[in-house]
Amino acid sequence: MVNLKSLFYPKSVAVIGASRDNRKIGHLIFKNLIESGFAGLLYPVNPKAQKVLGRPALASVLELSEPVDLAIVVIPAETVPKVLEEVGRSGTKMAIIISAGFAEIGLAGQEKQEQLLKIAQKYHLRILGPNCLGVINPKIGLNASWGETMPKPGKIAFASQSGALAAPVIELINESGLGFSYFASLGNKANIDETDLLEFFGQDKNTDIILAYLESFKNGSKLVRLAQKIATKKPMIVLKAGQTDQGAKSAQSHTASLATPEKVSRGIFTQANIISTSSVGEIISLVRLLTALGKKQAGLKTAIVTNAGGPGVLTTDAIIKNGLSLSCLSQKTIKKLSRILPPSASLNNPVDILGDANEKTYFETSRTVLTDPEVDNLIVILTKQRGTNAQAIANILGKLKTNKPIIPVFMGGRSVLAAKEIFQKITLVNFGHPQEAIAALAKIIFWQERAKKKAVINQTRINGGQINKIITKINQPRLNETEGFQLLSACQIDTPQFEVFNNQEEGVRVLKKIGYPAFLKVLSADLIHKTELGAVQKINSQEDFLEHFNIMKKGFPSLKFILSEAVEGTIELIVGVKKDQAFGHLLMIGAGGIYTEILKDNSFRALPISKNDAQEMISELKIYPILKGARGKRSVNLGAIEKTLLAIAKLVEAVPEIDQLDINPLIVGSQSVAVDVKISLLRG
Amino acid sequence: MVNLKSLFYPKSVAVIGASRDNRKIGHLIFKNLIESGFAGLLYPVNPKAQKVLGRPALASVLELSEPVDLAIVVIPAETVPKVLEEVGRSGTKMAIIISAGFAEIGLAGQEKQEQLLKIAQKYHLRILGPNCLGVINPKIGLNASWGETMPKPGKIAFASQSGALAAPVIELINESGLGFSYFASLGNKANIDETDLLEFFGQDKNTDIILAYLESFKNGSKLVRLAQKIATKKPMIVLKAGQTDQGAKSAQSHTASLATPEKVSRGIFTQANIISTSSVGEIISLVRLLTALGKKQAGLKTAIVTNAGGPGVLTTDAIIKNGLSLSCLSQKTIKKLSRILPPSASLNNPVDILGDANEKTYFETSRTVLTDPEVDNLIVILTKQRGTNAQAIANILGKLKTNKPIIPVFMGGRSVLAAKEIFQKITLVNFGHPQEAIAALAKIIFWQERAKKKAVINQTRINGGQINKIITKINQPRLNETEGFQLLSACQIDTPQFEVFNNQEEGVRVLKKIGYPAFLKVLSADLIHKTELGAVQKINSQEDFLEHFNIMKKGFPSLKFILSEAVEGTIELIVGVKKDQAFGHLLMIGAGGIYTEILKDNSFRALPISKNDAQEMISELKIYPILKGARGKRSVNLGAIEKTLLAIAKLVEAVPEIDQLDINPLIVGSQSVAVDVKISLLRG
Repeated sequence: MVNLKSLFYPKSVAVIGASRDNRKIGHLIFKNLIESGFAGLLYPVNPKAQKVLGRPALASVLELSEPVDLAIVVIPAETVPKVLEEVGRSGTKMAIIISAGFAEIGLAGQEKQEQLLKIAQKYHLRILGPNCLGVINPKIGLNASWGETMPKPGKIAFASQSGALAAPVIELINESGLGFSYFASLGNKANIDETDLLEFFGQDKNTDIILAYLESFKNGSKLVRLAQKIATKKPMIVLKAGQTDQGAKSAQSHTASLATPEKVSRGIFTQANIISTSSVGEIISLVRLLTALGKKQAGLKTAIVTNAGGPGVLTTDAIIKNGLSLSCLSQKTIKKLSRILPPSASLNNPVDILGDANEKTYFETSRTVLTDPEVDNLIVILTKQRGTNAQAIANILGKLKTNKPIIPVFMGGRSVLAAKEIFQKITLVNFGHPQEAIAALAKIIFWQERAKKKAVINQTRINGGQINKIITKINQPRLNETEGFQLLSACQIDTPQFEVFNNQEEGVRVLKKIGYPAFLKVLSADLIHKTELGAVQKINSQEDFLEHFNIMKKGFPSLKFILSEAVEGTIELIVGVKKDQAFGHLLMIGAGGIYTEILKDNSFRALPISKNDAQEMISELKIYPILKGARGKRSVNLGAIEKTLLAIAKLVEAVPEIDQLDINPLIVGSQSVAVDVKISLLRG
Repeated sequence: MVNLKSLFYPKSVAVIGASRDNRKIGHLIFKNLIESGFAGLLYPVNPKAQKVLGRPALASVLELSEPVDLAIVVIPAETVPKVLEEVGRSGTKMAIIISAGFAEIGLAGQEKQEQLLKIAQKYHLRILGPNCLGVINPKIGLNASWGETMPKPGKIAFASQSGALAAPVIELINESGLGFSYFASLGNKANIDETDLLEFFGQDKNTDIILAYLESFKNGSKLVRLAQKIATKKPMIVLKAGQTDQGAKSAQSHTASLATPEKVSRGIFTQANIISTSSVGEIISLVRLLTALGKKQAGLKTAIVTNAGGPGVLTTDAIIKNGLSLSCLSQKTIKKLSRILPPSASLNNPVDILGDANEKTYFETSRTVLTDPEVDNLIVILTKQRGTNAQAIANILGKLKTNKPIIPVFMGGRSVLAAKEIFQKITLVNFGHPQEAIAALAKIIFWQERAKKKAVINQTRINGGQINKIITKINQPRLNETEGFQLLSACQIDTPQFEVFNNQEEGVRVLKKIGYPAFLKVLSADLIHKTELGAVQKINSQEDFLEHFNIMKKGFPSLKFILSEAVEGTIELIVGVKKDQAFGHLLMIGAGGIYTEILKDNSFRALPISKNDAQEMISELKIYPILKGARGKRSVNLGAIEKTLLAIAKLVEAVPEIDQLDINPLIVGSQSVAVDVKISLLRG
């Protein structure tokens, strides 16, 4: 485990750049540390001052007799390297660099940032930042940031790649009555990144919910592995900005962030079981609901009790659109309800208890509905009508004894304010709009369900010896057709029958073996656009062959040729692997043909993957209903597609120098056959 | 114009069922009328009481010497018909039926509701309801409803098919400082429906914004025509519940509503230029922003000025995802900004003016950005940081002189509360989250853009005489192949070359004319699944023909046959018409092949359509990028597809008895050819 203890629990802190000028950030941080109630030792470092805020100033950390646990650097970027060197020499192992002017300003800043990294390496120093706001640990009164207010203590740990965005998030969460175990501003993530913090938060007993705002992924593959483990115990909510190309460009100039396409992030979040969100509003909904639910398990089947028909309809729409289902109440429940409710009430889900329903009706109806085994969660809707006593109803909902989630949706403004305050006290959480409640609930359910599911390890066997033999023989970056097919065959991936030949006579013999139709190609790793060059032809007869072979032979006299069988199947897919700076190898499956690029029907995962990942990749495709056999048509062999994905994953594990791999098309039907494959290696 | 004046501006009102029992709705309504300050005459009608709330009660409206303008009926469903008859006889022409127990409870109620309609017809009586909350006109102090509070007066007219949903909507809008011109609860819409109200609101000078909550469409084609006209002057916001199948089922038991698939509603809303929304929260955002914008024209090109990088990135994402674009600031603007802002500020859009920006920086930067012709709208983001004076910044934004929309997004809780109050005073409107602001802005922009665009009338010429001749000859509900093709040809829609024949000899002759490949079919209007019955075959040679013809002849000895040319093209589409209970004829275009049903790639409009509608239907398709020629491929003939849609629209206008029409496939490439068509008529 990474040791960030001295970042969040330092016993002594030096602020290098602590200033007497109350407009300077160095002043604000030092003041925050003094005023927040931090009990450890505090040293202002400022060669130009005798004292800062009443404390005697040092000219350098080297004047200290013992190294401090944490050094905070708040000086102009130019002088940071020199001072960081001193921090290292002093024996301190943890520094926060608040100063901006590094990678986020471009090439010159990038070089300066690399200087810092070299110093860090030399002294085994960990650095948070540069270009950040600092860290906060409310429990020990540590406000080592220049944020204006100290968050309230609580169970939420928050890592943010934007300091300024953190301010409203912290304020809004505090105002919902919740608090923070830690806050850390990530800045440029030169050294400490989100995965270091995640690891610390994951193992921390004071943290129940982990929250992150990210503009980029620093160490994607570590993120996936870590998050998968943590997600079994704690929810992680990530707001990833820069999802669009333009947004990613803005992030680039904000925190020097590398872009990750939204489709990739989405796949990664599913794989890592991270709760993904796209707005601060939704973050607030999620942490409120997660806190209210505590250890309660939610499920897909949702019941509605409402005193208002319209909101019942809107909630039903939201339930279906978010992938949940409407509980089908049993006849027994309906009979019980008929005894509680007036004749014009609607006894089916949504249960409409009518506008004049009082607290007794709400209580009895909810209690009855909750006993139905078909009900996993209960949404209780109220709009203020004549005689509705929202407070009394809020109070009585708190008296329902159940281990199923109850989510009140009391709609309106001031008329339901007092009821909302009651909910905060009795650890129920009210939502003003059903859509908000259902969206948050659905995300939490999917997290819980995935956390319970055991990952089945990829145990696909591939022929390592054979693969090694093929790879060691290759002495150029791209593999030709036969090499590609041989590699796939060694992974037990079906390929078309094929044979290489040199001349017309051999070709005719091969053709007889393979039959019609067949494909004739020039054998070459270097010709990329073979179709456009006339180096691929479909062969329907021997005359066809002779005609095309003679043309090709003239065009490419020094090359060999290959004949391969034409494969029939139902649907064309594509499978690919490419290397990503943050995530390492990414595996992709997508719909083939003209729909590939236009409909962007594809899904991604970072390697390695589990059997579950492979299944999910396939079922996420828009064409999945077609693969599964829509409208009475036969399903394709889904197991064979899954096997292909798992085999490719294993191949790349065995041959990490694979830079890119493209099977296009993978023809699927009763089989899954890789009809064409392009593979390139990173060499050197 | 429908005359609803006596509904909203009655001079005299009778409440039939006005009760002394303060738990009864009849009491509440009468009390509301007294207390709300209504200046007209008020009569309680209650045969069992002498007085109600101090006013002498009548036993029947027939005791009145002059008919009242408005009768409100609040008695048990059983007695409503008798009383309504009396209302009719009294000479009153407008009634609100509050009582429930009609169509919403099933068949028995449905019959009772039809009774009411007969009475209404007999006496030329208009009815609002039954099963409704009533109407409110705050300006004249008319609260003819059993709602608890009187809304504040203002410029928003609101029609709601759910009384209970109206309560939070009214409360939240009032609490944002806005008010209502009228409120009407639609209930079961037996007689007065949303289009009647829409017509009244559209022409009303006191109404700037029209709002509706609907669970169904009563008179869809009228809605489209009306809304198109009104939308050029006023925005109409509609929240349509029951978008999912399950939601529609809930709506059915709530207000006896017929389902309309979401895809159809979406097409209709675009066609009618109605601002569609799916939550109360968004309604509030829209009315707030619409009111703040007033007559200002927004545009797609949006600039951001922010003191916080992260929110700038999130706003950029929201801009792109909602179909707006990020303004590309001119070099001139950037140069001006460089003089205003510190060196580490980001001068490109989003303009990051850094965390310590004060009101002067906000003002100067915003003013400069607003002068750039590339900027249509400005989003001003603030998160509260050290030294940020949110109130001062709010105040100074109000001093910017511009006819471009400025939308503040001050994020946070209590720390920006005072600033939000300032915005309300200076008619700017603040949003707490950029996603909310951008979503509302985008919807308003698209409404404004469409309102400015002139509709080009469908002037496609079809051969009416020819069409009449074909139709009059048909004496069964379904048309056969030749009749279908002839009808399309009369509309100048391309069909494949074809010929009907009786025997093998004739067939061989026809085949020579048509060439290979061709399609051989049994000519019949009654065989629906021809492919499955072996009644369609592709013919590649004369032998093919002889073989298949002989089999078919044996299977269908008494029928004729048809040979048609096989058409080549790039892409298969489908075009269809069907009759909808609410909207009359709906026209649909969709992607063909296996993707039709799975990807649900289709778009709908109600007939008649304009040229613009036809173009939009095509461009809404997911496969539109493919049609347009993605990735260097040639575009298909989009004009030909448009022409086909317009011709079909004209055909259905000319032959309204067409019940269903399906062109499947329409093969498009350089041409647009209807390869197969099925048409059925409503006869009798």
